Amino acid sequence: MSRFMNILVHVPKRFKSNLSPSLSQIFKNPPAINSELTINGYVKSVRSLKKVAFVDLSDGSTHQNLMCVLKPHQAENLRTGQSLSLRGNWIKSTGKEQAFEFKVLNDNESVKIIGNVPETYPLQKKLHTLQYLRTLPTLRWRTSYLSSILRFRSFVDFKLNEFFQSRDFVKVNPPIITSSDCEGAGELFQIESRNTELGNEPFFGKNAYLTVSTQLHLEVLAASLGNVWTLSPVFRAESSDTNRHLSEFWMLEAEISYVEDLNQLTRFSEDMIKAVLKDLVEDKNFVASNILKSQRSTEDLNEINQKLINRWKNLYNKKWDTISYDKAVKILKDSRKNFRIPVKYEDGLATEHEKWLAGEYFKGPVFVTDYPKDLKPFYMKTNNDLQTVACFDLLVPDVGEIIGGSLREHNLELLKQETNRREMNSEDIQWYISLRENGSVPHGGFGLGLERLICYLSGADNIRDVVPLPRAYQECEA
Amino acid sequence: MSRFMNILVHVPKRFKSNLSPSLSQIFKNPPAINSELTINGYVKSVRSLKKVAFVDLSDGSTHQNLMCVLKPHQAENLRTGQSLSLRGNWIKSTGKEQAFEFKVLNDNESVKIIGNVPETYPLQKKLHTLQYLRTLPTLRWRTSYLSSILRFRSFVDFKLNEFFQSRDFVKVNPPIITSSDCEGAGELFQIESRNTELGNEPFFGKNAYLTVSTQLHLEVLAASLGNVWTLSPVFRAESSDTNRHLSEFWMLEAEISYVEDLNQLTRFSEDMIKAVLKDLVEDKNFVASNILKSQRSTEDLNEINQKLINRWKNLYNKKWDTISYDKAVKILKDSRKNFRIPVKYEDGLATEHEKWLAGEYFKGPVFVTDYPKDLKPFYMKTNNDLQTVACFDLLVPDVGEIIGGSLREHNLELLKQETNRREMNSEDIQWYISLRENGSVPHGGFGLGLERLICYLSGADNIRDVVPLPRAYQECEA
Repeated sequence: MSRFMNILVHVPKRFKSNLSPSLSQIFKNPPAINSELTINGYVKSVRSLKKVAFVDLSDGSTHQNLMCVLKPHQAENLRTGQSLSLRGNWIKSTGKEQAFEFKVLNDNESVKIIGNVPETYPLQKKLHTLQYLRTLPTLRWRTSYLSSILRFRSFVDFKLNEFFQSRDFVKVNPPIITSSDCEGAGELFQIESRNTELGNEPFFGKNAYLTVSTQLHLEVLAASLGNVWTLSPVFRAESSDTNRHLSEFWMLEAEISYVEDLNQLTRFSEDMIKAVLKDLVEDKNFVASNILKSQRSTEDLNEINQKLINRWKNLYNKKWDTISYDKAVKILKDSRKNFRIPVKYEDGLATEHEKWLAGEYFKGPVFVTDYPKDLKPFYMKTNNDLQTVACFDLLVPDVGEIIGGSLREHNLELLKQETNRREMNSEDIQWYISLRENGSVPHGGFGLGLERLICYLSGADNIRDVVPLPRAYQECEA
Repeated sequence: MSRFMNILVHVPKRFKSNLSPSLSQIFKNPPAINSELTINGYVKSVRSLKKVAFVDLSDGSTHQNLMCVLKPHQAENLRTGQSLSLRGNWIKSTGKEQAFEFKVLNDNESVKIIGNVPETYPLQKKLHTLQYLRTLPTLRWRTSYLSSILRFRSFVDFKLNEFFQSRDFVKVNPPIITSSDCEGAGELFQIESRNTELGNEPFFGKNAYLTVSTQLHLEVLAASLGNVWTLSPVFRAESSDTNRHLSEFWMLEAEISYVEDLNQLTRFSEDMIKAVLKDLVEDKNFVASNILKSQRSTEDLNEINQKLINRWKNLYNKKWDTISYDKAVKILKDSRKNFRIPVKYEDGLATEHEKWLAGEYFKGPVFVTDYPKDLKPFYMKTNNDLQTVACFDLLVPDVGEIIGGSLREHNLELLKQETNRREMNSEDIQWYISLRENGSVPHGGFGLGLERLICYLSGADNIRDVVPLPRAYQECEA
């Protein structure tokens, strides 16, 4: 007996590939009406009537299912979750919900169960809570809503690549493993080899950690290549169990040379996110419809969709607000809102303050600039007032901060003063400091939490639902 | 005194940005002849004659330097490595080497040293060895050759993104931190939080490691989304100190559903690399000229360039060879070559064997398929002969293996037999095995070492020269 199932089908030439075409590709480039073909996918639902049975087929490539029409006897052994290979004709649909349907040939050979499921297969047609789905880390991405989020993430990733390409930035891969522990402090993960043959010496000859931000290394590359960016995993051993924190997440970081005005950075960030929004608003690639049509609850479908569409249009069409930290604190205090955490100038903004500012006060994104220097890291450029730094956070409704950026102190003496003032062990980052004595230029950059952006743009409430297998305190499934 | 230097210049509208335009952007979209503008960059070299001085200016955005013409007195304090801001006119060049040059205005205000360098600045006009440059981890990317490699890498990255987008693959980010130690064995890095406030319990509730390959997790996502890919850092605690091994490197991995023939995977890999080569051969975006013109030694320039151009054309125009492992071993044995490591069927191919097969015998890339199962991991699909697995390695001249792929065992019983035969602790990967009981489909995929591909396509000899800050055994600079 062959170990292979021979489900291979002739791939029509129009697909320029010898892979089995996905439903997404078939919908975009449909076969001729009445033509015969084989289609693969998994069962979303089966409905058997007296004379006819319907199978909703999906393959995860699009939110759109293919309605397959069978004889009832052909559907007897079918159930949700099974993978099928079906032979049939592509016909015009008589129903209103879709333009096409797939009429399976009337013999038993035309319905093959490629992969079976146990009767206890946990995903059924009914709507499961997201909380329940999180207990099924390997299966939850088969649901329409969650799979649409990963497709959406993929789309956003590609648009960001296109944006930086169009701006002539060089994409780089700074190291993930670092020997500097000057950032991150208690939030660092330490790493060591388990290779016992190498003896007890540290593998890298010194302590090594997972990076909390690639910025310092990105500055090395900006000093040589001009404008650089990266999309890279970063790691924080945070124990805060919230719906917006993970121990492993992806950060987009950019570092830009010859920048002296914070405005250049905030406008650039705005352009970057608007480059993604343009396609959403125009829905050129049906990504927007994808995420909209697969919203969870049919009851609130229209409401949720309208909220998202308004969010995108509002973001895309308006010029984003900018205020100073001073002003932000004043607005928060004047609001007389009863925040859980009281507003204090020297404490910085708590998430609830950020959400209120963006969500309630500005009703949209807002850049908050020029924070007190003691609230921010050592490398940020001090302003002329000597009290604040030339930095910004981008706050958005529902999520809070999604971008943090600043001009960097590029003057050697001023940078040294600051590391001394903070009593930092500067030996550790001598390599970084030395950039300032080798043709240093005014520069700045920012970091964008990719998952937070995805949450904001897709309307997802919990960051765990926009990452395939979330890693957090006491959480490392599969 | 202001802490800012006021080097900000008016950015012409044609750049659709308020960032200072890079030399690359200016060359692509040059200003009107004789127009006055400010240009920023670092000094590659200074040459002073009696009546005129020349400064070669670069900003890392292109291999092409801008020739700046100054009065000798203006160049008195200038030296290699300094960052300058120059005010002048864009004029037609009288020389043959470039179409344009930049005539600096005749006053002292027009030459600003933005960032100085010590007299010991280690990069001088002369050609430094790559070995020496590796001792300057933060400065070496300022050399024409090495910066062109990073720009080349960025280009390849973008082309790969375009390719997968055009094939409707979903880009995903499988976890970097994993609790499975069934792959990698002695090559694993273990991670633990340094957050002492959390007590002595493992941060993730169990042992956690850095991933050696995202494949197993990628299969989770392929089972839901169909065809997926990722570009992700992976980690191996290898102590082998060679010019093709790193402890941290980037791997492109793809996982494809409804694949039953190895040919589909090899052809797809070939299409993928040819998508990158197309632009190189046609040199649409001047990436090819970029890497060619910045080759290291002017002496061998033509020879090296011709070798690269031939490599690209040869790769692009020919259909790549495929042979079985059996056949490969036979060819190696029949060659009667005196290999350092003797050729034995049961030992697999050593790097020297791989390089000889691709470089000497096939004179181009070759897919070697169907290795004996004991040379390969547990998840590969056993062939009908029960001795070999449906897998392939792509071997290329000079580098050896750059891709490894296979069909995966998607049958639950057969997979369990194999984990039992290998006496694996399958509890650890129960999540992976369970995919086979939930609508499993025939699937397969591959992993491409990004750095090795860059080495091969750019002609770089040492993998350390295609990664910003290489991490390897006893090597973790900056």
